Amino acid sequence: MTDLRLTPLAASLPSTVPFVGPEAQERARGAPFIARLGANESNFGPSPRALEAMAKADVWNYGDPENFDLREALAAHLNVAAANIMVGEGIDGLLGYIVRLFVGPGDHVVTSDGAYPTFSYHVAGYGGTLHKVPYIDDHEDPGTLFAKASETGAKLVYLANPDNPMGTWHSGAALARALDDLPDGCVLVLDEAYIECAPSGTAPDIPASDPRVIRLRTFSKVYGMAGARVGYAIAAPGVIDAFNKVRNHFGMNRAAQAGALAALGDPDHLRDTLGKIEGARTRIATIARDNGLTPMPSATNFVAIDCGGDGAFAKAVLDGLIARAIFVRMPFAAPQNRCIRVSCGTPSDLDAFAAALPGAIKDARGG
Amino acid sequence: MTDLRLTPLAASLPSTVPFVGPEAQERARGAPFIARLGANESNFGPSPRALEAMAKADVWNYGDPENFDLREALAAHLNVAAANIMVGEGIDGLLGYIVRLFVGPGDHVVTSDGAYPTFSYHVAGYGGTLHKVPYIDDHEDPGTLFAKASETGAKLVYLANPDNPMGTWHSGAALARALDDLPDGCVLVLDEAYIECAPSGTAPDIPASDPRVIRLRTFSKVYGMAGARVGYAIAAPGVIDAFNKVRNHFGMNRAAQAGALAALGDPDHLRDTLGKIEGARTRIATIARDNGLTPMPSATNFVAIDCGGDGAFAKAVLDGLIARAIFVRMPFAAPQNRCIRVSCGTPSDLDAFAAALPGAIKDARGG
Repeated sequence: MTDLRLTPLAASLPSTVPFVGPEAQERARGAPFIARLGANESNFGPSPRALEAMAKADVWNYGDPENFDLREALAAHLNVAAANIMVGEGIDGLLGYIVRLFVGPGDHVVTSDGAYPTFSYHVAGYGGTLHKVPYIDDHEDPGTLFAKASETGAKLVYLANPDNPMGTWHSGAALARALDDLPDGCVLVLDEAYIECAPSGTAPDIPASDPRVIRLRTFSKVYGMAGARVGYAIAAPGVIDAFNKVRNHFGMNRAAQAGALAALGDPDHLRDTLGKIEGARTRIATIARDNGLTPMPSATNFVAIDCGGDGAFAKAVLDGLIARAIFVRMPFAAPQNRCIRVSCGTPSDLDAFAAALPGAIKDARGG
Repeated sequence: MTDLRLTPLAASLPSTVPFVGPEAQERARGAPFIARLGANESNFGPSPRALEAMAKADVWNYGDPENFDLREALAAHLNVAAANIMVGEGIDGLLGYIVRLFVGPGDHVVTSDGAYPTFSYHVAGYGGTLHKVPYIDDHEDPGTLFAKASETGAKLVYLANPDNPMGTWHSGAALARALDDLPDGCVLVLDEAYIECAPSGTAPDIPASDPRVIRLRTFSKVYGMAGARVGYAIAAPGVIDAFNKVRNHFGMNRAAQAGALAALGDPDHLRDTLGKIEGARTRIATIARDNGLTPMPSATNFVAIDCGGDGAFAKAVLDGLIARAIFVRMPFAAPQNRCIRVSCGTPSDLDAFAAALPGAIKDARGG
């Protein structure tokens, strides 16, 4: 295939995956995990109403390419106009569309070193130049990000609030103030995948049509529907309309559309899940402390645990957990890679984690 | 939003949709369709095993980004290597990835005038130059396509066999012979969405790793899972590997992966569906003839019906059917747009079509 006539950009890209899936790790291990705590999925599951709606969906029909019902329901839920909402194949899919719309060779983009790798994957995939700034005290830092955007003339800046993989966050008020320093014409891609888990006031109080910001949310986390692939963007109508230039119009799974709509109509399940997340965060923190490790504060459905050493030590702890059939992940970049990242799980998931951790630490310390 | 800093290419694109969905038409009409015969979905539904597998899937988990189980099963089913298979979000999604990999501004692509518009949408979306050749006797014509590819130095040629929207086909042997005239380095994107409905021998007998061809198949048609979004490509390993440079690795719905796997394991349902499709094709042809119209031969799950006039007349017949709550579509380009296109439906779907057609024709003839 030496004569494959790919575009020069495509030819230059590696064949890669931003994350290796747990299924691939299970195949490599030759055994299943006993606790799945690595992908910040919701181990508490989706709303029964969502499951029922998905089972009832006419899957022989293509989904509605306009995502009309779901967009209307989201608009009502958020008290914005449907013209402010775009539904897509998870935040990953929407990030791809956003990068495609704004970024080509020669364009600059800013993110934090160690922030969500799928965003960086898309920037590379469309030929953009990615600039990375450090976390400050384990927080993605708007001031540093926006200063770098100004310096480079960036078209996009990526910021997750709350942050993944650290679980830290900024208040919405602080973020709104920081936006004054976003350079003219630069768009903030604000990933709010975990916003429902965060303290009240973490989402900035800015209009949906603020042209400076594209907000991204998802049914993959607290709604327990990661496998359904439903995310949405909140943005100015001109931005929303731009998605229609490039998106896969019939790309949404019809059952997923119905499931998300039903999930949105079950606030009791959401409340119940948020309670379980809070309980699990507390328990993970306790397990960490019981083992001499330091849990980070978290506004998400996971807890980053500072293992007290360097990246190699945290990786050894992680490997020990994997070897004990506990699926967890860890930050990619120093100094955040002194941590492992543990998703909220059910009591039995966390029992398994608690049972495995001491041995993993012991092994990491060389027995 | 006049200052939206889209790429020059994105800024030049219209906000469009290759097809208006039936749901949008229902909202515009203010009433539902009584027969859904416009999108070549399978009105006979998916395998009960697929439904059961989708209902049982752990939708709180992300799907396996490697699509390992489904690729292995498809490879066994087709007697090829898993390295020859890429699974994606429907043929539409795969077409987008293929165009992205091969086509940029300045690159040439060839298709037939009136062939699948989503392919053309993607070519425009990545800045390619699209050349259209005419159908010959209502068939997409490999000779004409490949000659145009030679003339333009095209990187890709698109051909659906069997064809959509006409339902016509070439034998696999004829197509394999025609490949001798495909210019060196040009890749044939062979859309076999309807291949299971076609006479034996319609698929060309070429190796899966033939570097000249990327074949595309789907669970949206005879498998009755259009809303699940599962398609796959069969190609040389180097091409398959290239998808990993750009695809949305976690884009597949987990339930859809499980459903497709189960569907593949239910050949009885497939056989039953193919029998129903054959019966429905015969009935649609009879209904057409009973109304003085001419059905085209079909190797698909739909029948193009020559309304005996020009495009405006066929459009009037189509409008009359829509007004009578029958969802159908029609070819876009002359002279194929003398036809309407009717998907195979259940007996009650076709009863409704048969009841509506005389009035639609009468209205089209001006009462």
